[in-house]
Amino acid sequence: MNGPAYVAVDWGTSSFRLWLIDRAGQVLAERRSGEGMLAAAKAGFAAVLQSHLAAVEAPDHLPVLVCGMAGARTGWVEAGYVDTPAPLPAILKQAARVPGEARDIRILPGIAQREVTSPDVMRGEETQLLGALGLDATGEALVCMPGTHSKWVRVKDGTVEHFSTFMTGELFSVVSRETILSLAVAGADEAEDIASFKAAVTAAYEAPAFAANLLFGARSRQLLFGGTPAAAREALSGTLIGVELAAGLSGAVPEAGVTLVASGRLAMLYRLAFDALSVAVAPIDADEAVRRGLSMAAAAIWTK
Amino acid sequence: MNGPAYVAVDWGTSSFRLWLIDRAGQVLAERRSGEGMLAAAKAGFAAVLQSHLAAVEAPDHLPVLVCGMAGARTGWVEAGYVDTPAPLPAILKQAARVPGEARDIRILPGIAQREVTSPDVMRGEETQLLGALGLDATGEALVCMPGTHSKWVRVKDGTVEHFSTFMTGELFSVVSRETILSLAVAGADEAEDIASFKAAVTAAYEAPAFAANLLFGARSRQLLFGGTPAAAREALSGTLIGVELAAGLSGAVPEAGVTLVASGRLAMLYRLAFDALSVAVAPIDADEAVRRGLSMAAAAIWTK
Repeated sequence: MNGPAYVAVDWGTSSFRLWLIDRAGQVLAERRSGEGMLAAAKAGFAAVLQSHLAAVEAPDHLPVLVCGMAGARTGWVEAGYVDTPAPLPAILKQAARVPGEARDIRILPGIAQREVTSPDVMRGEETQLLGALGLDATGEALVCMPGTHSKWVRVKDGTVEHFSTFMTGELFSVVSRETILSLAVAGADEAEDIASFKAAVTAAYEAPAFAANLLFGARSRQLLFGGTPAAAREALSGTLIGVELAAGLSGAVPEAGVTLVASGRLAMLYRLAFDALSVAVAPIDADEAVRRGLSMAAAAIWTK
Repeated sequence: MNGPAYVAVDWGTSSFRLWLIDRAGQVLAERRSGEGMLAAAKAGFAAVLQSHLAAVEAPDHLPVLVCGMAGARTGWVEAGYVDTPAPLPAILKQAARVPGEARDIRILPGIAQREVTSPDVMRGEETQLLGALGLDATGEALVCMPGTHSKWVRVKDGTVEHFSTFMTGELFSVVSRETILSLAVAGADEAEDIASFKAAVTAAYEAPAFAANLLFGARSRQLLFGGTPAAAREALSGTLIGVELAAGLSGAVPEAGVTLVASGRLAMLYRLAFDALSVAVAPIDADEAVRRGLSMAAAAIWTK
């Protein structure tokens, strides 16, 4: 049995995940917590990381590779960006070393799109892309990465050519909690209403300009015709995802369909949404992709 | 000089306005407060109204006509709806009398659109429409009524044929206060950035499906290229208004242009937005319109 070779960390805005990995890429231990960038900025990044390293009994010499918002200006150490067009292998050549630490800790850079009409940034998704597509990717891919800030990425022969961020997840969160629509979804249980969701996806896809009207419709419908809070919640979710898909699918779609990098409930919702529009998807698990991307990068950096 | 003939009240979700009016329709006194439906539901509608009536020394016998959310199910007394197609004069025939009050207090109904694919409701705007267009309106009008929940209304020969609510104002409020974009607009001063606003209106009008991407762009642009919080704020506002206009203007626009019923800063912003798209508008002051609508209704109900 192999001992640990390195530690991989996906450090997002609001979540922290750590894996202890051996030389063969096998996971020996895993940690998950809510100590994302926002929480760690208060508690101290070094202290948060050390507590999890201690919990998995990581040896003192073991190197750590981090991706995500820990490398933002407001994070631990700013890790810069690779600019588009961005070859994915360039990411692992620009890892920033955290200064003042005995242990070798590096943070992967993000990708920046310095275009005046479509400025955009990603941090963390570049590592998922690396894991999803590999270091030697060929051909064209249109990658949909749902989340708080969904990314749609065009990759050609392993180079990120263009991408767009949609704040779909964050909009769903504030719209369902902080607006008049919170009255319509209050008390929604776990039950799903797939018919409401798919109908909302299709309506929003066909008339994206009406987004703010379709959202309000969830409440009007309840006032005039009744309907469950779950139906209203799925209508909000379907409307916002349908508008995102109208934009994401507005260009050419590769023959293989859309590469969907997602996990859990989001993966399920987006598969339903693409299905409502009869668009083929090639699904890839997002959790696995980021771990694989970190492993590829760690192997390239420390296993020479 | 005439004595007071009636009291007119515009009782919205978050605002209360009262006018003491004489037989000739002249305003003798005015009151404005934040005691809208939400506040009054706690303090008691009768008590809030009485305090303002006392402040303007309204005689005990003076009748009171109310429009707006005070007539909602969650308001004072439910005033029902006139269903579309809704002739504006029908509104003043369905005023609901508040029971248990010695004084004659009536609340005007709203308008409901009981269509399965586009259910919608309004309360208060029907009275603005009455004031803006009059009891004997002829011809076609496309009316834009900006607000927390903007309404776009098609009126033909004095009958409301169809309308759509867009939660543009509420979206601007939660997006600029409760999302990551709050970082981009923090510290925005009163200064306006008209160029940013107009550019955002045009971009969103041309690609409404990209709304959630254009919003996020306000932050990416600041990260990569700098820019003031005011520019970011106007970009958010322009994006949301541009998407609304893409929907509102998607049908036929009457030769006379769009009838814009708005006041203050919103009137200014929407005039700029229509100007950016070279669409002609006929502006009507919203405050005056609602007072005129209430006066028309009061005259019809009590001056026979």
